[in-house]
Amino acid sequence: MAKPDVSYVKKTMAEIVGFISSAMEKIDDEQVERMIKTLIDAYNKGNKVLVMGAGRSGLVARAFAMRLMHLGFHVYVLGETITPSIGNGDAVVAISGSGTTRLIVTAAETAKRNGAKIIAITSYPESDLGKLADIVVVVPGRTKKAPPYIDYFSRQILGIHEPLAPLGTLFEDTTVVFLDGVIVELMRRLGKTEEDLTQKHANVEL
Amino acid sequence: MAKPDVSYVKKTMAEIVGFISSAMEKIDDEQVERMIKTLIDAYNKGNKVLVMGAGRSGLVARAFAMRLMHLGFHVYVLGETITPSIGNGDAVVAISGSGTTRLIVTAAETAKRNGAKIIAITSYPESDLGKLADIVVVVPGRTKKAPPYIDYFSRQILGIHEPLAPLGTLFEDTTVVFLDGVIVELMRRLGKTEEDLTQKHANVEL
Amino acid sequence: MAKPDVSYVKKTMAEIVGFISSAMEKIDDEQVERMIKTLIDAYNKGNKVLVMGAGRSGLVARAFAMRLMHLGFHVYVLGETITPSIGNGDAVVAISGSGTTRLIVTAAETAKRNGAKIIAITSYPESDLGKLADIVVVVPGRTKKAPPYIDYFSRQILGIHEPLAPLGTLFEDTTVVFLDGVIVELMRRLGKTEEDLTQKHANVEL
Amino acid sequence: MAKPDVSYVKKTMAEIVGFISSAMEKIDDEQVERMIKTLIDAYNKGNKVLVMGAGRSGLVARAFAMRLMHLGFHVYVLGETITPSIGNGDAVVAISGSGTTRLIVTAAETAKRNGAKIIAITSYPESDLGKLADIVVVVPGRTKKAPPYIDYFSRQILGIHEPLAPLGTLFEDTTVVFLDGVIVELMRRLGKTEEDLTQKHANVEL
Repeated sequence: MAKPDVSYVKKTMAEIVGFISSAMEKIDDEQVERMIKTLIDAYNKGNKVLVMGAGRSGLVARAFAMRLMHLGFHVYVLGETITPSIGNGDAVVAISGSGTTRLIVTAAETAKRNGAKIIAITSYPESDLGKLADIVVVVPGRTKKAPPYIDYFSRQILGIHEPLAPLGTLFEDTTVVFLDGVIVELMRRLGKTEEDLTQKHANVEL
Repeated sequence: MAKPDVSYVKKTMAEIVGFISSAMEKIDDEQVERMIKTLIDAYNKGNKVLVMGAGRSGLVARAFAMRLMHLGFHVYVLGETITPSIGNGDAVVAISGSGTTRLIVTAAETAKRNGAKIIAITSYPESDLGKLADIVVVVPGRTKKAPPYIDYFSRQILGIHEPLAPLGTLFEDTTVVFLDGVIVELMRRLGKTEEDLTQKHANVEL
Repeated sequence: MAKPDVSYVKKTMAEIVGFISSAMEKIDDEQVERMIKTLIDAYNKGNKVLVMGAGRSGLVARAFAMRLMHLGFHVYVLGETITPSIGNGDAVVAISGSGTTRLIVTAAETAKRNGAKIIAITSYPESDLGKLADIVVVVPGRTKKAPPYIDYFSRQILGIHEPLAPLGTLFEDTTVVFLDGVIVELMRRLGKTEEDLTQKHANVEL
Repeated sequence: MAKPDVSYVKKTMAEIVGFISSAMEKIDDEQVERMIKTLIDAYNKGNKVLVMGAGRSGLVARAFAMRLMHLGFHVYVLGETITPSIGNGDAVVAISGSGTTRLIVTAAETAKRNGAKIIAITSYPESDLGKLADIVVVVPGRTKKAPPYIDYFSRQILGIHEPLAPLGTLFEDTTVVFLDGVIVELMRRLGKTEEDLTQKHANVEL
């Protein structure tokens, strides 16, 4: 039997890993510091953190929320059952690569009007979400709208620098890894160990 | 003002990126080929794909499901509202780093008894989930149970090779990137372009 | 031991049951007919149905979606993982007692702009949601804003006709029962039996 | 135009309302008292309440959880993002008409092993769920397995007392109304007014 050709799996993985590595260098430490300070401030005062994102960005938001819960934050996810009211002193983490996802912009506006501090994670600081946010962390990515000139795989062969990974993938995967980095920084600052996280980790789960 | 020290954010990102790069080399092409053939077979026959995972692995499963939907698969997520019955010819993608998450093993057993083919994504092929699966793709990771000998940050300083990224992070992030690679391989084989995905992408979303 | 006094449980149940009974008489058959025809039209043409609602109304929407799935509809829930794009010929069922829930109005507007037909279930046909909808089914309820003059339980004692059931409860519970009625009417028209529903019912579920 | 015939909508609504009314009489006050005491005990001690159910029973569980959150409970839903570990002193509310839903029984067992007190809401106290529970509240219903002898609508005509409402509908709708009754009893005992609930109600919601 011939060796199976699954080469696009690893080509894509290499592309994503390469993208994250170079994106990492572009993330601004001052912006990250402001985000972390706002989160720690909410933690210390027992205030709430609400995370939100549409589609795959919403899943990235949830992965972050789960670890914030393990760290002892009062964290909630937009659209889940037990999400309470938010207001003064609370923080919102809104994730949108394009910064234009309408329901997220609408929700962030409402949260801001209720007194919450908005942290936007986006590739476009000049977007609607970026502009309304109190703190913007720019995570490089690619918008969903790629020009449909020519066939997708041809672009690679022609050397047109369209990524293999479609739509928002590069932004989403970079943000997953970035937020996991933020978690470790939070662990260090709050003096939390992995054992502390394990104590909070769901023991009845799906 | 002194430059902010958010160094653990990028140290952790570098660790995760390094881990994914080396994990990538260890993923077995034959296993991946079997997974992809099973998925394409379900696609061609109009059969269902059910994805499942607990906790953050469940979010990874959802991120994969969303792209499978964009590709035109009949894909469902365990625990969501409109998940129908599954049976002969259907495929299950069950994600569990340890392969022991009880509700996932239970759900996968039930699915298997109903005639579905089980694809396990796990670090432990000898786990309960690995053993009951028809196809196992081993994605390197680290179990959730690290020995609690010594303080978490001390371990790094002592050079004990405990990762910075806590709990299942390395498995989860590697699996996110791996499954995004699988999506591109599926795009190539099914002749789907990014424009095809955009057509299916939710236009009313949260 | 004295008999336990859990009398408010049953007083409230009686109130809710009484409310549903009288609300039932006020639901307009023509409106219901229009809703059912739109749904059956989507079913016959293989078009999609997207359900949406915020908070408890969102749960009512999901309970309805689950039965539509059992009936063989291509039904999706706003905010869940595999919800695809919607467009011409698709139907939206948007549930909001007040008809003013901002994210639902925003989502319904977007769906309408994409060509979907909007069915609103609301107590207020003159609300934003009611006005943008193609079909409105008025289900009696009570808005969330009750005047806070006096103590909650005192109002009952004083005979002020505030319901025991707080906030949107009366609307939500009436809508649950109404939509379960719609399901049986759909069963009859589509010639579906309970056995047909059982075939589709999730056999691996959470 | 002839008057539309949507008569099964209201026949079914009348059936459900009639069922709830008679089910109400059969719910045992002592069982309800035990449930309420356990919940209030968790509230007073700041312990957690975890709700769970599969399929539509899971939606009923969420509707209850949302109100418990409005009342100030530390309540979580199995399968949602921020559900933490549970243990001694925590309470579980597990909803299953048949009491045999495998993932719920498995989850309840795990919770019990971790020290939580299990409250089962079921029609079958002798079921697996009923037997492992510390407290059982019997809510009348009908199991999902109806004998498929004869055509569904014929049964009604023949006067065979098969309900119009299919599958678990009668149990689910009765449980919705029952738990809304429990909420009002909890309001009374905790001295909470509707305004208190409004304070906690999500102000950014989907």
